[in-house]
Amino acid sequence: MSPVPVSKHIRWDVGQVTRAQRESVRGHRGAALWLTGLSGSGKSTLARAVESALCARGISAYVLDGDNLRHGLCSDLGFSPDARRENVRRVGEVAKLFVDAGVLVLCAFVSPYRADRDRLRATMASGDFVEVYVKASIETCKARDPKGLYVKSAQGEITDMTGVGAPYEAPENPDLVIDTESHEPSESVEQALRYLQENGYMPAVGK
Amino acid sequence: MSPVPVSKHIRWDVGQVTRAQRESVRGHRGAALWLTGLSGSGKSTLARAVESALCARGISAYVLDGDNLRHGLCSDLGFSPDARRENVRRVGEVAKLFVDAGVLVLCAFVSPYRADRDRLRATMASGDFVEVYVKASIETCKARDPKGLYVKSAQGEITDMTGVGAPYEAPENPDLVIDTESHEPSESVEQALRYLQENGYMPAVGK
Repeated sequence: MSPVPVSKHIRWDVGQVTRAQRESVRGHRGAALWLTGLSGSGKSTLARAVESALCARGISAYVLDGDNLRHGLCSDLGFSPDARRENVRRVGEVAKLFVDAGVLVLCAFVSPYRADRDRLRATMASGDFVEVYVKASIETCKARDPKGLYVKSAQGEITDMTGVGAPYEAPENPDLVIDTESHEPSESVEQALRYLQENGYMPAVGK
Repeated sequence: MSPVPVSKHIRWDVGQVTRAQRESVRGHRGAALWLTGLSGSGKSTLARAVESALCARGISAYVLDGDNLRHGLCSDLGFSPDARRENVRRVGEVAKLFVDAGVLVLCAFVSPYRADRDRLRATMASGDFVEVYVKASIETCKARDPKGLYVKSAQGEITDMTGVGAPYEAPENPDLVIDTESHEPSESVEQALRYLQENGYMPAVGK
């Protein structure tokens, strides 16, 4: 008898409540805003601020954050290229569940490898994955260093710091670029909200 | 230089929108209803039916289903005791995220090992984890065999079928027992809704 593949005896259970029904009840569509950028570029700050603005408008939003997820779902993963790939894969699968639940999910992850992000986009329906490049130069990120990681990297305590000892591959065709170096945080939030409105993810404010 | 532990440089990011705020907006609390039982006991059917009933009442509900998750997040896992443990761990972490998002999440998983379920309960706040034993005898489950798994098990195609070649450890102190052998599906749904109302997870219907 040959070994049984993992998913051979598993059916996809479609369920009785559809995503369209959930979205209809909520008055907006589900989607994953995938915020990629260097540590210190402002991904988490932006995600939290956008979540807050969306919730204030009655939109069902939720932040999936690299730091938070690494305490739970991905607590077994390190920072090698393979581990980072698996990290993005798992978080992507969780994001898909939230999208299916009709939530606008804000995913704030360094996710340094282009191939990992492209792989994720390829497994999602058109428009479900919105790649947002949170842009700031490595010099600015080092100066901000909100978690002290660049200092630790300079001291040799971290060897695989993205942008220093490990690569960061910026998106080539992101759906949205938010430059946190030349814009105030409030402007960045407005830019994200405007994108969501103009692309039909949520009703325009005041309409 | 000694190796750096996985999470040493990771901070927990609390966020700007709290769970209490999300629950307040939604009008009900988040929680994970963890449906455990043999294959064929009716977990997924019950979860879908309860989701439908909750959504019809405006409750934000969502089903996490063993079969569905094994196509995505847990597609790399098999059915050994270790793989089953990791499966429950990952799904539990995802359930916690949905609970934090203020969702009543219905988790339909065989989850045969008592220790795995107890470990999950121990990592969640009181009342966030509701263990529901979906009860049906192995004979009834074999007769139902909705996925044909028991037949495949009898034919030797599956060797680690829960309840046959692999153990099922029934809950000792479940929060709720739903006997799908002696109750109609509609009665089981009502039983679950009554539990949620009587224990303050959602407002009573008609109030």
